[in-house]
Amino acid sequence: MTSTTHTAPYTSTVFPLETMDVPGGTETILRGGRHLFPLLATAFAGVRRIGVIGWGPQGRAQAQNLRDSLADTDIRVAVGLRPHSASAADARAHGFTEEDGTLGDWLAVTAASDLVILLIADAALAAHHQEIFAALRPGATVGLSHGFLLGHLRETGGEFPAGHGVIAVCPKGMGDSVRRLYQQGAQINGAGINSSFAVHADPDGRATDRALAWSVALGSPYTFRTTLESEYRSDIVGERAILLGAVHGIVESLYGRFRLAGDDAVTAYERSCENITGPIARTISRDGLRAVREGLDVSGRDVFDRVYTATYGPAREIVAEIYDEVADGTELRSVVLAERRLGARPMSRIGGSPMWSAAGDEVRARRDRRALPVDPFTAGVFIATMTAQIDEFAERGHPWSEIVNESVIEAVDSLLPYMHARDVAYMVDNCSRTARLGARRWGPRFQAAYEQIAYPAAEHPADEALLTAFDTHPAHEALTTAAKLRPSVDISVA
Amino acid sequence: MTSTTHTAPYTSTVFPLETMDVPGGTETILRGGRHLFPLLATAFAGVRRIGVIGWGPQGRAQAQNLRDSLADTDIRVAVGLRPHSASAADARAHGFTEEDGTLGDWLAVTAASDLVILLIADAALAAHHQEIFAALRPGATVGLSHGFLLGHLRETGGEFPAGHGVIAVCPKGMGDSVRRLYQQGAQINGAGINSSFAVHADPDGRATDRALAWSVALGSPYTFRTTLESEYRSDIVGERAILLGAVHGIVESLYGRFRLAGDDAVTAYERSCENITGPIARTISRDGLRAVREGLDVSGRDVFDRVYTATYGPAREIVAEIYDEVADGTELRSVVLAERRLGARPMSRIGGSPMWSAAGDEVRARRDRRALPVDPFTAGVFIATMTAQIDEFAERGHPWSEIVNESVIEAVDSLLPYMHARDVAYMVDNCSRTARLGARRWGPRFQAAYEQIAYPAAEHPADEALLTAFDTHPAHEALTTAAKLRPSVDISVA
Repeated sequence: MTSTTHTAPYTSTVFPLETMDVPGGTETILRGGRHLFPLLATAFAGVRRIGVIGWGPQGRAQAQNLRDSLADTDIRVAVGLRPHSASAADARAHGFTEEDGTLGDWLAVTAASDLVILLIADAALAAHHQEIFAALRPGATVGLSHGFLLGHLRETGGEFPAGHGVIAVCPKGMGDSVRRLYQQGAQINGAGINSSFAVHADPDGRATDRALAWSVALGSPYTFRTTLESEYRSDIVGERAILLGAVHGIVESLYGRFRLAGDDAVTAYERSCENITGPIARTISRDGLRAVREGLDVSGRDVFDRVYTATYGPAREIVAEIYDEVADGTELRSVVLAERRLGARPMSRIGGSPMWSAAGDEVRARRDRRALPVDPFTAGVFIATMTAQIDEFAERGHPWSEIVNESVIEAVDSLLPYMHARDVAYMVDNCSRTARLGARRWGPRFQAAYEQIAYPAAEHPADEALLTAFDTHPAHEALTTAAKLRPSVDISVA
Repeated sequence: MTSTTHTAPYTSTVFPLETMDVPGGTETILRGGRHLFPLLATAFAGVRRIGVIGWGPQGRAQAQNLRDSLADTDIRVAVGLRPHSASAADARAHGFTEEDGTLGDWLAVTAASDLVILLIADAALAAHHQEIFAALRPGATVGLSHGFLLGHLRETGGEFPAGHGVIAVCPKGMGDSVRRLYQQGAQINGAGINSSFAVHADPDGRATDRALAWSVALGSPYTFRTTLESEYRSDIVGERAILLGAVHGIVESLYGRFRLAGDDAVTAYERSCENITGPIARTISRDGLRAVREGLDVSGRDVFDRVYTATYGPAREIVAEIYDEVADGTELRSVVLAERRLGARPMSRIGGSPMWSAAGDEVRARRDRRALPVDPFTAGVFIATMTAQIDEFAERGHPWSEIVNESVIEAVDSLLPYMHARDVAYMVDNCSRTARLGARRWGPRFQAAYEQIAYPAAEHPADEALLTAFDTHPAHEALTTAAKLRPSVDISVA
């Protein structure tokens, strides 16, 4: 995958782009903020009506953010739902109604819109994209927040509709955070979830400005460019690795290991799951990856170094395997097969395993009593896994903004805090279907590899070269730069 | 997948076929034995030279068995190896030499043979089958012992060479057992490994007799028919499930569970791995599946029933998923991707995990001191997994001979005894590449599902309907019938 597609310079006739230093070069980015809202109408020239198709977490967040941001313009935002959708009542409760023309049938809303943002579930998109494409008005632009459809079209020999712009704006966080932080942004300018954008087809030359406008209107603190292909890969791989799948595998394996070593259930939970979603995530968010090790005492650093050494190789093996299968389309085929199978046999839930039922509530109740110290073993495992993903993405040519967002920022600022409030099992059982399937498939691979290969080697001497590579990693600089572009705002999770 | 292809009657002009009752109908089978060797020349009419391509476990076993069986005929068996093959010396040591024309370059041997038996590794077959096909002499028959190439051709849009017979004879066991039991068969007529056979292309109408002759010459106690498609699916799924992948996942999960409950390493190993490869495998081999439960006392049966109930559902979910992906070609694509990746980054080994290093040797040393009782928890898990595979194969229309061989007999008479002698980790690290990849991929799925879903539910009441279905399962009868066709010979493993 060549990197030129996303590093070639791009321009905007509307927005003030900036050049950001990244390892090995620069990226052109757009720093967002409400001060840019007066530019939206110009950037959206030709788009008088935006249709948001779907009312899931992304759909409802994006529809509301866009409506609020465009309130001072003539641009109307409508929500399109499929017939008999269970979401209609909630959309109405949020002010999208049939009466004022801001709620309707998905194909009707599509046909009436100049920018159609498809935020329905992957399975629905796979099943219905042809009808939706057929309903587009001339000159309309297709908007996506996820590269899935690209992969699906490739697997099935389909195509995007000719003559229509195809753009993507992909918030690097969950829908709930996209809305909540936007609302916080009314007080703290710039609060929000970063987004990537991509231009896949640009018949009238205006696709870039429309994509940037969409991202600014969502409240993205900063917007960086990628390609639809690159987005697809990093997103699907990421949710199977450090964003969800590997996290689950890691916490199950650590919990088991600590229990086997003699810890009671509560202590084991605190040292594993609670440690990752709590102090480790917070430390990375505030001070970067190295700060986790630097906060340990001498013996803790020794443990970290050995465990990091033992874990990195197995982690990298699995991330490489996941990446190959996502890039090849194999992983997507398994998702499609699973969808068919789940019609007959619904997915079981993992929330009943011992660690979740026994210890989680007690640990959450204890939270305010003391600050939980970082566990050096857990930290070594987690940071090694995160670095393995960073390295794999870098090797495969992803832009640095995408690498650090998909491997670090989305984890520590969006997903892990969510898991901190609700627990990892809840997340695994309740996130998007594609993510659930991926986490269920790959989580156990990390768990088994760590139990059988990494942890038995955890006492071996640390590998100095590996640790030096971590210490001098270009990702730290890329992460610092990205962090500068956003005010530090704690994600609030209800 | 229609079942008529393998249930339609077939005939032999040479061998005495028999009709065997199976659930729902009959199968036509051939009972083997050395008394049939005088018929081989007739059945092999038109085949004067057999080329065995490859000197792996199957290659060397089949070449030797065929040579021995055909010693009283004019049919010559030669071994073909690729240039600079490391196996040449061993082939010569077993009497296949360049001097007498029974050892040579694989394409040269192919070009000189009337039946070309391809027993090279899957990856090599994928890479070189076109050269091999191009080298075939007119009228030559292609022989396979594995359906892999069918899957590969389908995935890549390739084809078998037109005008050539394509047959398969697939021993349901490892190469070492195919040879060793053949040698035992000199004393005990009928000792051997069962085989399936398939006719995929039959230009001259003689393919069935040639396939049966090949199987008889290998020493197969009984030969049953299937299709190449069916063989492929059951074999690839089986090695990912009850034959290897699930076994590994099961023993790792049970070992961890017993250790967590307070058992020392040796006890946990005896209750898990040793129990499965030892008394459980032996009981099934001698007396069938129900005998495992019947040998337990009242409280043991209660544990078995609850654990069986808790395990069956999760097991079935995963077997169904594996099956879908094998049938769809997705699993094969992942094998191909892994082959590429492993060039750069070899597969790590799992033999270092705690259970293998800590306890195995001690447990093996204790073997003669007492007869290990069947552990009811372990038995419930194992039997439920085995039954889930049986049920999935039955639902997908596999012939009953194939079901019981691929789900029970090959396990208890071939693979588990091998693991009993060498241990499961050794097997996982040393079997065929395709099997290794599959076991590494799916073993952790069973492990995680059992730890997180099945075992937490193991105290719940047993499901009477599920247990009745087990008790009255048609597989018991099919297994008994299959067992009658072979003298009970303990597999000896050096």
